[in-house]
Amino acid sequence: MKQFEEWEGFKGRMWKEEINTRDFIQENYTPYDGDASFLAGPTEATDKLWGILQGLQKEERKKGGVLDMDTDIVSSLTSHGPGYISEETKDLEQIVGLQTDKPLKRAFMPYGGIKMAEESCRNYGYEPSERLHEIFTKYSKTHNTAVFDAYTPEMKKARHNKIITGLPDTYGRGRIVGDYRRVALYGIDYLLEEKENDFANCGCGVMTDDVIRLREELAEQKKALKDMKEMAQIYGFDISRPAKTAKEAIQWMYFGYLAAIKTQNGAAMSIGRVSTFLDIYIQRDLDKEIITEEEAQEMIDHLTMKFRMVKFARIPSYNQLFSGDPVWATLDLAGIGVDGRSMVTKTDFRFLHTLENMGPSPEPNITVLYSSALPENFKKYAADISIRTSSIQYENDDVMKPVWGDDYAICCCVSATKTGKEMQFFGARANLAKCLLYAINGGVDCKTKQQVGPAYKPIMSEYLDYDEVMQKYDVMMDWLVDLYVNTLNLIQYMHDKYYYEAAELALMDTELERTFATGIAGFSHAVDSLSAIKYAKVKAIRDEDGLVVDYEIDGEFPKYGNDDDRADDIAVWLLRTFLAKIKKHHTYRNSEPTTSILTITSNVVYGKATGTMPDGRKAGEPLAPGANPSYGAEQNGLLASLNSVAKIPYEWALDGISNTQTINPDALGHEDGERINNLVNVMDGYFDQGAHHLNVNVFGKEKLIDAMEHPEKEEYANFTIRVSGYAVKFIDLTREQQMDVISRTCHKTM
Amino acid sequence: MKQFEEWEGFKGRMWKEEINTRDFIQENYTPYDGDASFLAGPTEATDKLWGILQGLQKEERKKGGVLDMDTDIVSSLTSHGPGYISEETKDLEQIVGLQTDKPLKRAFMPYGGIKMAEESCRNYGYEPSERLHEIFTKYSKTHNTAVFDAYTPEMKKARHNKIITGLPDTYGRGRIVGDYRRVALYGIDYLLEEKENDFANCGCGVMTDDVIRLREELAEQKKALKDMKEMAQIYGFDISRPAKTAKEAIQWMYFGYLAAIKTQNGAAMSIGRVSTFLDIYIQRDLDKEIITEEEAQEMIDHLTMKFRMVKFARIPSYNQLFSGDPVWATLDLAGIGVDGRSMVTKTDFRFLHTLENMGPSPEPNITVLYSSALPENFKKYAADISIRTSSIQYENDDVMKPVWGDDYAICCCVSATKTGKEMQFFGARANLAKCLLYAINGGVDCKTKQQVGPAYKPIMSEYLDYDEVMQKYDVMMDWLVDLYVNTLNLIQYMHDKYYYEAAELALMDTELERTFATGIAGFSHAVDSLSAIKYAKVKAIRDEDGLVVDYEIDGEFPKYGNDDDRADDIAVWLLRTFLAKIKKHHTYRNSEPTTSILTITSNVVYGKATGTMPDGRKAGEPLAPGANPSYGAEQNGLLASLNSVAKIPYEWALDGISNTQTINPDALGHEDGERINNLVNVMDGYFDQGAHHLNVNVFGKEKLIDAMEHPEKEEYANFTIRVSGYAVKFIDLTREQQMDVISRTCHKTM
Repeated sequence: MKQFEEWEGFKGRMWKEEINTRDFIQENYTPYDGDASFLAGPTEATDKLWGILQGLQKEERKKGGVLDMDTDIVSSLTSHGPGYISEETKDLEQIVGLQTDKPLKRAFMPYGGIKMAEESCRNYGYEPSERLHEIFTKYSKTHNTAVFDAYTPEMKKARHNKIITGLPDTYGRGRIVGDYRRVALYGIDYLLEEKENDFANCGCGVMTDDVIRLREELAEQKKALKDMKEMAQIYGFDISRPAKTAKEAIQWMYFGYLAAIKTQNGAAMSIGRVSTFLDIYIQRDLDKEIITEEEAQEMIDHLTMKFRMVKFARIPSYNQLFSGDPVWATLDLAGIGVDGRSMVTKTDFRFLHTLENMGPSPEPNITVLYSSALPENFKKYAADISIRTSSIQYENDDVMKPVWGDDYAICCCVSATKTGKEMQFFGARANLAKCLLYAINGGVDCKTKQQVGPAYKPIMSEYLDYDEVMQKYDVMMDWLVDLYVNTLNLIQYMHDKYYYEAAELALMDTELERTFATGIAGFSHAVDSLSAIKYAKVKAIRDEDGLVVDYEIDGEFPKYGNDDDRADDIAVWLLRTFLAKIKKHHTYRNSEPTTSILTITSNVVYGKATGTMPDGRKAGEPLAPGANPSYGAEQNGLLASLNSVAKIPYEWALDGISNTQTINPDALGHEDGERINNLVNVMDGYFDQGAHHLNVNVFGKEKLIDAMEHPEKEEYANFTIRVSGYAVKFIDLTREQQMDVISRTCHKTM
Repeated sequence: MKQFEEWEGFKGRMWKEEINTRDFIQENYTPYDGDASFLAGPTEATDKLWGILQGLQKEERKKGGVLDMDTDIVSSLTSHGPGYISEETKDLEQIVGLQTDKPLKRAFMPYGGIKMAEESCRNYGYEPSERLHEIFTKYSKTHNTAVFDAYTPEMKKARHNKIITGLPDTYGRGRIVGDYRRVALYGIDYLLEEKENDFANCGCGVMTDDVIRLREELAEQKKALKDMKEMAQIYGFDISRPAKTAKEAIQWMYFGYLAAIKTQNGAAMSIGRVSTFLDIYIQRDLDKEIITEEEAQEMIDHLTMKFRMVKFARIPSYNQLFSGDPVWATLDLAGIGVDGRSMVTKTDFRFLHTLENMGPSPEPNITVLYSSALPENFKKYAADISIRTSSIQYENDDVMKPVWGDDYAICCCVSATKTGKEMQFFGARANLAKCLLYAINGGVDCKTKQQVGPAYKPIMSEYLDYDEVMQKYDVMMDWLVDLYVNTLNLIQYMHDKYYYEAAELALMDTELERTFATGIAGFSHAVDSLSAIKYAKVKAIRDEDGLVVDYEIDGEFPKYGNDDDRADDIAVWLLRTFLAKIKKHHTYRNSEPTTSILTITSNVVYGKATGTMPDGRKAGEPLAPGANPSYGAEQNGLLASLNSVAKIPYEWALDGISNTQTINPDALGHEDGERINNLVNVMDGYFDQGAHHLNVNVFGKEKLIDAMEHPEKEEYANFTIRVSGYAVKFIDLTREQQMDVISRTCHKTM
């Protein structure tokens, strides 16, 4: 059993016998059910640093989105000297560490794909290094090159026609959440010792390909741990030993996260569930009276400021998919332990409080693991912050806990993973709306006129027959799922081979569970279209090539989003059918297939590539995001809409069911207390039904329109809204996406 | 069916329907059973070029073994401009193409291992490039780094203690023979087309790891084919189309081989079985009277000159193992077709004749695929050349043909592979003599005193009991085989990953058979030791630590090499037991396990690491090479020795059974005709018994001693001898190895 002097005062045994952060938390945390009155405002240092940072952010926006950029240094754990928000104020920074040597300067990260790394430079007016071009085209293959070398023509065509979309084949796959807390609790030397131990016991001696691969991965992990120590040393810290104080714990944990964002550029680079953990250290120091509440808050504010600074170099097509430069630095708060105790601590309040001390912000992507059993005071404080900042999302701890336990983290928007014990193979999504059109048109894409799917017999009749459409949809979905899963198998294989997440995985168990995350786009439109065909009369309009390109709908039909079982049953059927097809397949590393109903902001781009649907949605219009009902479909108020989404069983979409709603403040009530209570009631009701996720926006359309027209107004500088799965500064969205947000349903009534 | 105008006059169909060089050969070659009188002497150009080359070779020897070296260019198919033997005489070169831009200049080849590439530079006084050091340590992992990252401590220890030896973990594994003839017969464009076709049909769509790996490999092969065209273009040739003339056929084929030696630095880089193939083109041109016999011979001479120039940069420890700078540019002649026709053509004579036109030479490693059914004239001519040059080895076509068909090639010394249809995973060897000592000493190495094997109970008795030793040997061999096979699995996995032979494999079928070649060292000593324990009384002498370090043998015992079944039966048992243990294991890519009894010149180094044996061989003395009887063991003349070796079933050592013999010229007779007839008779008798291989040296010890003492004498400049598995210029051996060769049995009687 290990004993470190840094652990003085900590209880429990199992976490000392093995690496087990969860056990440490459960043995040592102090639940808090009081209110927010203990919280401290920003310190002078916080105001000053945040002021400087806001200046830099403005400058960044003025320069077209990027302040500065590396072109000649390949980002690694030790590639850069120390960096601070500003040289003059570096002593004010309680928590230090930047991705490069300067604030908001973007690193050069070629391993996911040299092309995209170079394009991102050129896109912002920087000239990429010729030397690095030679190295990463001649001597060192990148993930992107390898994937495209191995793709089949069919895969390329499906990708090009956007029936499979958002594939992680040009940059990091992301979504892997290292247990960054381990750095603080154990120190690097012990983690290294345990990895050496795993290396010595990896396999029984029979060198199968799997064992050899794992041995090599462990070697990479060990190197990453050693480099992490060196990285911390650059900032003057020795993280070989455990953290002794709250400040060290926060700093050590952050170094773990910094290692991830220095080496990987996945779309989602989440932080995890750190609040209850850090609270143990803060509470110990408060109890010892070596820090004050002001100092505690300052450390959390400064840590959060670092999370607000995470940046990657992206290309235009990426920005179209994920508008507003998100990084999904997802940070999880609250939740209930397996033993029934609330895991809300004062530090969960402190993290929410950063949205007051430094104003609203899209990052970190604050996620409340919700249960109606959470302390009332916390629920109310969160609802209050939601109403005032629209910066929080909520996910249902009651449905996730039975699957993932009480130490899971959200690894992107809505996807839970067991911290340190599980990794996800991220796989973006298949467009099931488009797939329905392929079923109707015999595999021909009505946008590009290419034969993309198999050349099955198309629908020949004038009026669509439900049974015939369903039969054709079923076999077309078979094709799509088969191609999709195999494309992902190939991508994940190459990512492991060419862009292995050594730093993140070094902070996780060696024997991991792995999920194979698929996803669905165009969900509501597929559902409503099938409903239209079933309950109304849908006439196919064909072009000169005989392709169905439009529909005439005669009669009414139930739509998903109105608590009408006729439509909602189709939604459940569609999810179940898709998942069952996925599960039939071989998946890379025997990973466990899951799926999500989640499109983030890519609903706009996906919609552009999708023809007119039988539900009345016209070609090129945005799809509804995630599991949201289609725009305009919801006719019966917020609660009916929530009820429809709540019917989708989380068990069949373990990667998450994203729902984004906007509520007019007036719909919630006429004064703060009433609004807070109403929002808490809405969420209690929604989540108690087993719904998974809710993005809560509280504002009216007028504000959006005004912000779109007058982005220069000071009040809109940090105006943050929740879009599908993340938060974004509204003024950072493209006009097209702003229009999309504006056209979404804003519930004026419950 | 393909039709090229270049194929005019060629018969057959199947080879036009698919890539099938063998079918082309069988349909078109002209057997020749005449004598050597048609052969032409060297042309003026040949004499001139060979004179220049000999001058360069002398200069090379004077400079310590290396004439020139690249340090800043990574060798690739297109890394160098054209190179010639000399600028002034380049128009005289009928066949062109060098590994680098200058003759005998060694290329920088880091992919197998940057350390060894750099060490080889420093070893010869060159300073390796810092730029390339950075690239191959920071951005591009090499095979060697990857293997050592993944090795277990047990593997490293076994390797360090040399119970497993000669592993291909620091440079290329070699032994892969591309079907270089395909370049001539089909041209690159058609080969590329077929690879595209294979790529399109690789797997059924299910992306398992195996299919993904193969798809990526095919992508690399396609790139290699494109680069080969560019490489030929550098010399002014368009190899996209098939060869039209004999000269083009030779040149195209050579470009295929050149692609291999520009990109891989395996110990063995064999050429394959090209004579019968090339003869078809030469005969066509002779028939058309567009070339003369002098011109035909000149082309073969110039091609052979190129094979004599192949060089790699090596390190001292490599040179100790494989003395005299061999490359195993193995070239196979003769053999009998499956249909019973001799495959000897005039070009088989022409290749042998190069040893007259340009004198003896260790390279190419000329190998006669022998059968007593070969035409008498050819057998006699080969025997004549053997007697005069000691530069030829013989392998038994009668035993190989049933296993490998009639288009196999020898890929190193003695190992057959089906040309273009099979690749070998080369795996060097396990020291079974040392393993016996480990059995006696409970896994402790008596040289290093380390516990290397498992700590089983050692032999405790004063006198060795045969049954007890056998039981302990059996379980120690279990351990050794297990470790050995798993070490090889790891090495082959990493080689495929980091140093894939794209150029060679591009000239082979996509769906390959794969053999997993293991090997045995210390064979005769293990056999004789067991015989001593069984038939004499062997007393164990222990040191102060209780380790058995010496033996006293009381009484006579039969030794392997005297046609005595008592010893020879043990030899057969040992091979069979070892192979059966190997076959139990998982092997990489489901390859077919084989084994060889072959040590090359590494018998000296292996012997140094092996303690005193119960057969009387003292610690540190060389082991007998390959399957040879121990030095001094053979007491009953050449034929008895050959009979012993012939008893070892080739079926259980499909990777080859190497036997090297030296015969005093007087033992063969007193004049040329008698000697030739006698040597042919010896070989007929030996091979008709089913023996596999024979290196034939014809000289007396006196000549060796004189050459060792007076290397400067002109007559010894090209004095070539056959050592275990290859030929070498005697004066290029280390003194230690010269002493070893001298101490081998030189048969003075039959």
